[in-house]
Amino acid sequence: MYTLYYCPGTASMVVHLALLEAGAVYELKLVDVEKNQQKDPAYLQLNPHGVVPTLVIDGRPYLESAALLMLIAERHPQSGLMPAAGAERDMWRQWIIYLSHGLQSNFRNWFYPSGLGYVKHPEEVSRALQERIAAIWDQLDQHLGKNGPYLLGAGCSGADLYLTMLMRWSRNMPRPATNWPALENLAHLVTARDSWKKMVEIEGVEAWPKSRTN
Amino acid sequence: MYTLYYCPGTASMVVHLALLEAGAVYELKLVDVEKNQQKDPAYLQLNPHGVVPTLVIDGRPYLESAALLMLIAERHPQSGLMPAAGAERDMWRQWIIYLSHGLQSNFRNWFYPSGLGYVKHPEEVSRALQERIAAIWDQLDQHLGKNGPYLLGAGCSGADLYLTMLMRWSRNMPRPATNWPALENLAHLVTARDSWKKMVEIEGVEAWPKSRTN
Repeated sequence: MYTLYYCPGTASMVVHLALLEAGAVYELKLVDVEKNQQKDPAYLQLNPHGVVPTLVIDGRPYLESAALLMLIAERHPQSGLMPAAGAERDMWRQWIIYLSHGLQSNFRNWFYPSGLGYVKHPEEVSRALQERIAAIWDQLDQHLGKNGPYLLGAGCSGADLYLTMLMRWSRNMPRPATNWPALENLAHLVTARDSWKKMVEIEGVEAWPKSRTN
Repeated sequence: MYTLYYCPGTASMVVHLALLEAGAVYELKLVDVEKNQQKDPAYLQLNPHGVVPTLVIDGRPYLESAALLMLIAERHPQSGLMPAAGAERDMWRQWIIYLSHGLQSNFRNWFYPSGLGYVKHPEEVSRALQERIAAIWDQLDQHLGKNGPYLLGAGCSGADLYLTMLMRWSRNMPRPATNWPALENLAHLVTARDSWKKMVEIEGVEAWPKSRTN
């Protein structure tokens, strides 16, 4: 039995998706980030970093969205979230670390100017961060175009859920991820899954991505 | 048989340490970052991100230091790099993701101002990054003081090798990690290990940390 402390649209989304893909029994507890509830003393007891998500298992809290994705994948081997041990598993882990370390951390810079000492990013910082994120979309799009449609090839894994959540975060940026064709294709594949539809229904997040025009 | 593309003192260090702890057979290939060799076309074929490390196994390149640590841990279960599956393994992965996503990514901001559009960080950015990193040392030091001496308690794991490498990166910062007592203690424990001593001998990096004065 899992208890997921979540907020719609945040990094908790990939954990929620993983629980749905695994067919796990779970309950949700809302931590309203708009109301800064992630800094409430009671929540900080669970999650001293003061962020969502937190996943509580047998009364013990676990943190870090990428780690939680791997945790659920390992505890539910039949879910298809993670490939079997060996070269494919190694690539899967590599993508997850790349998305966490390379991409998600840049979004943090983008969304939280205060972490860099700003109320609002100066123009040159904003431009540099956009370029860094665009360079990552370039690389991912090239990889998917050649080896896709999913990160590991023919089959969807937890790494694709994670990437799709992060793509969604770019939807109001000057160059959203869906401007890249293989990324847009992946977004459509992943958001057509039952787990994504159910997550949208439960969390009430806005529809994304736009329907294809061609 | 592993081939590690490395550069002394960089993120390849934790991978080198993991190979030594595992007693693995490996060869080293130097990628001289001072000479920008990580951007050489031949190396970019192996590692399109243009960074060290790259670990080649059976002719196939694998990237991302945190992922490589997990890869070696999984392929060498007798090494003690990773605890058995379950709550301890989950915490181990959580620490590695936290160090990668939370800490290592801040060092990238710190060491590469160009990623934020600067040649040199303005004073307020430098201060904000130092505060972010110091807040992470605070948290880690508190955790180790209460639950240490290692991240998982009584026994050293791959997560401690990773943390110690990252602590070393702070040695010339205004507030190095070793200013925090439980972190300093961990640095002494990990650098006293045979794997660390052998790595220092092979890579030729400068001695660290300073001997204790008390």
